[in-house]
Amino acid sequence: MGSKLKDVAALAGVSVRTVSNVVNNPSAVAVATRERVLAAISETGYRPNLAARYLRQGRTGQIGLAIPEVGSPYFGELAGLLIEKAHERGWTMLIDQTAGRAERERYLLSGAEGHVVDGLIISPWSLAPEEIGQLAGSTPVVVLGEIDPCGTADHLAVDNVAAAREATRHLLARGARRPAALGPQPTHRNGTAALRLRGYREALTEAGMRQDPAYEIAVTSLHRPEGHRAMLRLMGLENPPDAVFCFTDELALGALRAAREGGLRVPEDVALIGFDDIEDGRYSTPSLSTVSPDKDGLAERGLQLIADRLYGRLDALPARRVTAPHVLVHRETS
Amino acid sequence: MGSKLKDVAALAGVSVRTVSNVVNNPSAVAVATRERVLAAISETGYRPNLAARYLRQGRTGQIGLAIPEVGSPYFGELAGLLIEKAHERGWTMLIDQTAGRAERERYLLSGAEGHVVDGLIISPWSLAPEEIGQLAGSTPVVVLGEIDPCGTADHLAVDNVAAAREATRHLLARGARRPAALGPQPTHRNGTAALRLRGYREALTEAGMRQDPAYEIAVTSLHRPEGHRAMLRLMGLENPPDAVFCFTDELALGALRAAREGGLRVPEDVALIGFDDIEDGRYSTPSLSTVSPDKDGLAERGLQLIADRLYGRLDALPARRVTAPHVLVHRETS
Repeated sequence: MGSKLKDVAALAGVSVRTVSNVVNNPSAVAVATRERVLAAISETGYRPNLAARYLRQGRTGQIGLAIPEVGSPYFGELAGLLIEKAHERGWTMLIDQTAGRAERERYLLSGAEGHVVDGLIISPWSLAPEEIGQLAGSTPVVVLGEIDPCGTADHLAVDNVAAAREATRHLLARGARRPAALGPQPTHRNGTAALRLRGYREALTEAGMRQDPAYEIAVTSLHRPEGHRAMLRLMGLENPPDAVFCFTDELALGALRAAREGGLRVPEDVALIGFDDIEDGRYSTPSLSTVSPDKDGLAERGLQLIADRLYGRLDALPARRVTAPHVLVHRETS
Repeated sequence: MGSKLKDVAALAGVSVRTVSNVVNNPSAVAVATRERVLAAISETGYRPNLAARYLRQGRTGQIGLAIPEVGSPYFGELAGLLIEKAHERGWTMLIDQTAGRAERERYLLSGAEGHVVDGLIISPWSLAPEEIGQLAGSTPVVVLGEIDPCGTADHLAVDNVAAAREATRHLLARGARRPAALGPQPTHRNGTAALRLRGYREALTEAGMRQDPAYEIAVTSLHRPEGHRAMLRLMGLENPPDAVFCFTDELALGALRAAREGGLRVPEDVALIGFDDIEDGRYSTPSLSTVSPDKDGLAERGLQLIADRLYGRLDALPARRVTAPHVLVHRETS
């Protein structure tokens, strides 16, 4: 409780200035020293007074994370990784969820100017690209996936078009003749779903196959209940698909349940592949094929983009675009 | 960006004082007025400067949530509900994960004294009950589940003994003769697992059945891989169980996968029931029977306990103990 900077310094056997560096500019401190200081911080229970720290340094040591839903497995796993990696840098991650609502996204982005956080990682859903940079002002902002901020902020995503093309090619290579796409969101033209739809269509064109609008099933959310509902619609077609590329694993798991309820064998009667590689899909029966984004890399790069601007005086640099790798994971549903 | 209290007040047609009340003491403002002001706050993008607010009022408007893992479905769903309900009260929820480590729990609890948060909801794993109240000091703390703080802080949980007894009784009523318990954690004597084990044993005793240590399978984590591993052990017994009460849904989903891989029919050869009612289990095949804690009620009561102490001058009151309701949900695995 009453632990002070100097208690931490004494325990770690370093100067007060070094402790301060670990808290405020960890990359300036050698790894071994940093680890000793962080251990001493834990042991003494030292915590910088937030208000005092802000007034002294203009920094709070907090990084914001604004995601649509904490409870979705993909964002939950990613948030967990970000928190762990932020701790390694001496930062506390402040997580908030937007439910994809424009006013919440706007509030959080403009809050970055309210000195609550030193930087913000946001996965926006509703904002227009040009709004993002305007709202953020001088605080470092990283846009994660979904909407391309078009040069108004750093952007971090997987190559959604390429990944969707690979997933669809995989279904075709396994013998699919009528592959469907479950997950387009026609009202959301600038989002990830539009990119995944493009990749699906490109793979069909590549294979000399016709695009059939009946096989592109729109959804209003990315969760299991919606995957279940959409799969029932596909199964009700006169000529139902023999393979389905689902734009998220949650949609795929809902679709899998619908297929099983309808007595279909997966993958024999209908093959499925998802996107996200959540743990859930590894343990379903049959286990779910998926596109696996490098979540660990996404978390690491997201924080590095913030750190570069916080410590590197990159304010004047143009916005960067970082593509995280992905791999196709072939399991039992395909 | 430059929005001020008075812009919000003008837009909402109220006084600056009323806006301030909505931000700092929402329960003092009529619901209709509060909603109008919150809408105006969203619209103007107003965000109180955290440091200034703290210096003026001694409050940050932030409530901390410290959970073992953001990425686990149970805690993810609960965190999502807490964030939504905190927003309704004008609070921002600051989420952190402890990974169950004592030093992280200690740091967050003592941080409650560092003026980062006005209150803290924590689900501790490693701390001794007597440490919790000591560390928290004068900041309102609610202990969620897991460890009973024994009167040193407000405690909020389901009745784990009763719930486990009901789950086991349910398996017995469906004809189980050799029900196993998957999930005890012998090294963690004061935790939820110990209470669930007690409930399981009580149900056996009630039914005049013998307790067999071979049917109590300890785990070191509460996730799918560990459920899978533990189920393989049970299946390898000379006289394998015909029903398994798993202490979490994640353990149960791992066990389900192991049973299916081993060619067992669920529930015919072995019945399963979990605990938590995560969405995952609703869409697995077969769908998972479970004990469903009232997550919505847990979130609501947790915030109310904090609010009572923040606005009600309850510092001097003894610690309270609130039990949230649960129901047994019978699905296809039992």
